[in-house]
Amino acid sequence: MSALDIKSINTIRVLAVDTVFKANSGHPGAPMGLAPAAHVLFQQMKFNPKNPDWINRDRFVLSNGHAVALLYTLLHLYGYSLTLDDLKSFRQINSKTPGHPEADIPGVEVTTGPLGQGIANAVGLAIAQAQFAATYNKPDFKISDNYTYAIFGDGCMMEGVASEACSLAGHLQLGNLIAFYDDNHISIDGDTNSAFTEDVTKRLESYGWEVLWVHNGNEDLAAIAAALEQAKKSSKPTCIRLTTTIGYGSLLQGSHSVHGSPLKADDIKQLKEKWGFDPSKTFDVPQEVYDSYAKTAAAGAAAEAEWNELFSKYQAAYPELGAELARRLKGELPAGWEKNLPTYTPADPAVASRKLSETVLTKIQAALPELVGGSADLTGSNLTRWPSAVDFQPPSTGLGEWSGRYFRFGVREHGMGAIMNGISAFGANYKAFGGTFLNFVSYAAGAVRLSALSGHPIIWVATHDSIGLGEDGPTHQPIETLAHFRAIPNLAVWRPADGNETSAAYYQALTSTHTPSIIALSRQNLPQLEGSSIEKASKGAYTLVAADKPDVIIAATGSEVYIAVDSVKVLAAQGIKASVVSVPDFHTFDRQTEEYQLSVFPDGVPILSVEVMSTAVWSKYSHEQFGINRFGISGKAADIYEYFGFTPEGIAERATKTVEFYKGKELLSPLHKAFYSAKYEFHKY
Amino acid sequence: MSALDIKSINTIRVLAVDTVFKANSGHPGAPMGLAPAAHVLFQQMKFNPKNPDWINRDRFVLSNGHAVALLYTLLHLYGYSLTLDDLKSFRQINSKTPGHPEADIPGVEVTTGPLGQGIANAVGLAIAQAQFAATYNKPDFKISDNYTYAIFGDGCMMEGVASEACSLAGHLQLGNLIAFYDDNHISIDGDTNSAFTEDVTKRLESYGWEVLWVHNGNEDLAAIAAALEQAKKSSKPTCIRLTTTIGYGSLLQGSHSVHGSPLKADDIKQLKEKWGFDPSKTFDVPQEVYDSYAKTAAAGAAAEAEWNELFSKYQAAYPELGAELARRLKGELPAGWEKNLPTYTPADPAVASRKLSETVLTKIQAALPELVGGSADLTGSNLTRWPSAVDFQPPSTGLGEWSGRYFRFGVREHGMGAIMNGISAFGANYKAFGGTFLNFVSYAAGAVRLSALSGHPIIWVATHDSIGLGEDGPTHQPIETLAHFRAIPNLAVWRPADGNETSAAYYQALTSTHTPSIIALSRQNLPQLEGSSIEKASKGAYTLVAADKPDVIIAATGSEVYIAVDSVKVLAAQGIKASVVSVPDFHTFDRQTEEYQLSVFPDGVPILSVEVMSTAVWSKYSHEQFGINRFGISGKAADIYEYFGFTPEGIAERATKTVEFYKGKELLSPLHKAFYSAKYEFHKY
Repeated sequence: MSALDIKSINTIRVLAVDTVFKANSGHPGAPMGLAPAAHVLFQQMKFNPKNPDWINRDRFVLSNGHAVALLYTLLHLYGYSLTLDDLKSFRQINSKTPGHPEADIPGVEVTTGPLGQGIANAVGLAIAQAQFAATYNKPDFKISDNYTYAIFGDGCMMEGVASEACSLAGHLQLGNLIAFYDDNHISIDGDTNSAFTEDVTKRLESYGWEVLWVHNGNEDLAAIAAALEQAKKSSKPTCIRLTTTIGYGSLLQGSHSVHGSPLKADDIKQLKEKWGFDPSKTFDVPQEVYDSYAKTAAAGAAAEAEWNELFSKYQAAYPELGAELARRLKGELPAGWEKNLPTYTPADPAVASRKLSETVLTKIQAALPELVGGSADLTGSNLTRWPSAVDFQPPSTGLGEWSGRYFRFGVREHGMGAIMNGISAFGANYKAFGGTFLNFVSYAAGAVRLSALSGHPIIWVATHDSIGLGEDGPTHQPIETLAHFRAIPNLAVWRPADGNETSAAYYQALTSTHTPSIIALSRQNLPQLEGSSIEKASKGAYTLVAADKPDVIIAATGSEVYIAVDSVKVLAAQGIKASVVSVPDFHTFDRQTEEYQLSVFPDGVPILSVEVMSTAVWSKYSHEQFGINRFGISGKAADIYEYFGFTPEGIAERATKTVEFYKGKELLSPLHKAFYSAKYEFHKY
Repeated sequence: MSALDIKSINTIRVLAVDTVFKANSGHPGAPMGLAPAAHVLFQQMKFNPKNPDWINRDRFVLSNGHAVALLYTLLHLYGYSLTLDDLKSFRQINSKTPGHPEADIPGVEVTTGPLGQGIANAVGLAIAQAQFAATYNKPDFKISDNYTYAIFGDGCMMEGVASEACSLAGHLQLGNLIAFYDDNHISIDGDTNSAFTEDVTKRLESYGWEVLWVHNGNEDLAAIAAALEQAKKSSKPTCIRLTTTIGYGSLLQGSHSVHGSPLKADDIKQLKEKWGFDPSKTFDVPQEVYDSYAKTAAAGAAAEAEWNELFSKYQAAYPELGAELARRLKGELPAGWEKNLPTYTPADPAVASRKLSETVLTKIQAALPELVGGSADLTGSNLTRWPSAVDFQPPSTGLGEWSGRYFRFGVREHGMGAIMNGISAFGANYKAFGGTFLNFVSYAAGAVRLSALSGHPIIWVATHDSIGLGEDGPTHQPIETLAHFRAIPNLAVWRPADGNETSAAYYQALTSTHTPSIIALSRQNLPQLEGSSIEKASKGAYTLVAADKPDVIIAATGSEVYIAVDSVKVLAAQGIKASVVSVPDFHTFDRQTEEYQLSVFPDGVPILSVEVMSTAVWSKYSHEQFGINRFGISGKAADIYEYFGFTPEGIAERATKTVEFYKGKELLSPLHKAFYSAKYEFHKY
């Protein structure tokens, strides 16, 4: 451990402490304990601060995102576009340094903070790298060989999402994944012995990880470096268990008092004095530390330049693959890919939309090598696997290849969601999808929210999307599910009614660059509708059946649309003119012009919405809601629809009541509003 | 293995196979593989089919709930109120035998099917038993000594919620918990080697479990019995790893083809012939099997009679504890407990509602020994621990007692939710609460939904309930969260505005017998409101500030209510008369009379809702919505409120626009509806 090493490590600590103190909010303890490992790790990592998007950079994920002062400090010291002033405005409104790492900050790979997500993202990053390398590397052309590094703490290890992802990482033998476990024995409730006494080493080994243990993570830099070297040679994911002292250097080190509040002024004074810093100064960085880190950054820049040269030669040697890769690195889809999307006419047979989804995947997969995905152990139900798909598996298993594009996620919905986020975060235009029943996407709520917050355009293939799944009953039938997802900002929630709408959902999902999508698909067969098209459905909502001066508009989604269409005839027999609006996605419809929106839901006509689940979010579009605000029921799908009255006659009955109720009443479209401000609608995307 | 044992086991198999075949839907494979273990297990269990609620019965949880045909078959054979006709209507609408086990069926302890939940519920059942026994057992009076048994499969073990709960169970040394792991190597995607190759034995050992292995779970009844005996002696939770053949006896045994579809007719024929059953008969139970199981049932009835006698003597020997226990067994709260609920006047200081919650817990805990709970490692932030609380911990840890009522759940929100459900399912009027940030209740969405579906009146103490948490930023600030939970049937979602409303939330939550509650609480201080009361807030919504012939009604919740009240003055200065309605809980308000509802939100007055998160569900009560349909922002709470305009002036601005927009327009209350049917609102509770 050289004097410069010590100086550098203490600079990280002091800068993190100053940052938290200035904000009067944040977490100094973990940065102080982790500074030595972070120093050793970053000094041997390959990255270019001037181009944080270089595809072959090593990735670093801070899974214990509350330790973000550590990350911001490192990014500053290595010359990313984060100034001392940015550190000084830590956790202040509209700063570049929010309270937890957010993925749009240059140098931050993924948004973390919600515990357990980061390490699962890291598994996704490592999966993507392995698939990417196997797809594009050639003898003498190592296009991809980066590592994914992570740091996680006790809190992450307690979270189920981390368990799911780590178990899968072990199964997949991801030797490119190296994670430090900050074994500091402290969580918010105090010593971990009150709730977390498991043998973490043994647990990770049981998953198939290699575990190395650095017993003195506070000082033994040589051991940290040696562990990293050994980890890189392993054919398994490696955890470097790092026993540290939280808040190392503070008067309160080793206690949870240093976890989530700034150090006191006199405490900061003593540690600056102890480490040879001027206690009268804050945010004071020794020039030799900047210089030393600049050397690493320069080496990274040189490595990128070398890679760029390699890639030029690669494009010459492998023009087809090279062009494909260049396209992917620009984040563009191949020209004309969308011509593969199937279209339908009413003459085509009725098909379950999960089956329509399978047809889309099957037809587009060849054109889109960046399309990768799988299912949480429901492949045969979700129909997510195209016939020629190869599984992503270690070749030694005999079950697949590293270049395989189909993932066997296991019954791990939350892990799958977070892994998809990691795959998306890798770059190279990866479009990841994951299948499960719609109801069980809720198990992954934590990851779904982060897809939307971070802008990962991943896709949930969410089949068995309603009471229409039948016999499995209320434990499996979504009720609140669409209301939940429709309330998440920056999330498209498609519920296509037929083949053309299913193609539209995939078109929109795949062309979106920052918006994730959930595509809710039926178990039961749905007829191909007269009047649907990819173009119309791509607006999120459109008039499917247009009556002249309608007495009522019936708005429906997915498997209820054809029943609504059938109800028009029942109503006509009673002299009532009804239009039908199909609403495949609220999010997309909300982004159309006001003029278009009001053309679909105009003033003066009562609107009845029909959907076999919670009505909670429907009053935003409709005056009356026909839905199910209770849990479902086990039985044959047709019996359940009949029981709840979702038949042409049942819908017609509610439509008639709606017409009668509003007769003679002045009626505004629910979309007509007194005030509006985009500020409340748009985050970063 | 006697001939009768074999006959009994094959009867279970054949009955389960017939049940699934008749339904033409369901899962025969696991019941066939698990019949031997289930037979041995139930024959040594202590339970009385004539009184499935006997408090000292052994509990059995089928975590792989899709194997429900096994459970229904057992319940029938042992004489619970489940007839052969019930088995014949398996998975049909409104039968007593839905597609997955539901907790209101006599003999079904908890609702399972969503994987991983059951084993976590079992941990809760075991925790409750340990706490209950330590509280009421006395020398010579073993009031409680039951075991909690469970069966789980590969799918459960892949789910994070199971990881969380099993890790905690190991930490807590729950020797009263015995779980079979159905190690059949098959999940829906086929052989588990495609996704699940971890060493389950080693993993459970790492958590602190004892693991026994029965290598031939298909035939070795003696080994199963011996393992059960050994498990009962352990001071740790025990997993009996049971290697079985899925679909044992079928022509397709050992393959995933027998997992989720009925066996074919000729397959059923061969297995009936093989096992000495008449293949021309279905649902045919040998009398000696009924007789044998009836003996076990009779022994259980005798055990209950003995226990009743013991309890009579106990009541004489310990009149106070005996009376308390008798009361709890009746499911009643102690008379006058609610007098402990604090009330406030505007003269009282402003306090964060999380702190008000702490005051409630502190004041009521002595009167309510059934109140138990804890936090997912956020004790100091959630303020869930009253000063005199004792931790529930193995005494050997030196950290608490078995009779402790405070749980250190660790950072395990989903596990906490499922464990609370298990504690509630134990009976004895347990009222379990669990603390975390509101945003992270979403991690537990799978368990929250099951609380509501099964009717467990548990309580989430959900603090840091909005952008008002400040610096932690958008990763921690709920936006969609309340919309999600409000759309779940049978779930109360309180967001109290002050001390009286906080007391009301707890009053309603604790007196509810089948409705779980989420209580959303602020990090920031809130003033005590003029006009609030426990009684008014207990209606879910009420007029807090009543203007005479108001121009606008402002509806708000929680931390926005006082700002809305302050906006009234701003509006008055502009000549606009505004009323303010506080809406602490949608669920409760929806259950008031139509007359009351329309008195709060009458026709003819524009209604503006104000809440610092998604507006998605608000159009059901309001014409205009002021909220945040994007992610939040990191900064000081006051700055964020200011940024988004949630100030008296900001609210007044929107109210003014609302008044102008609706001026002269005919206006119905959003609660006035064209049709309504209770069928769509109420499930079982």
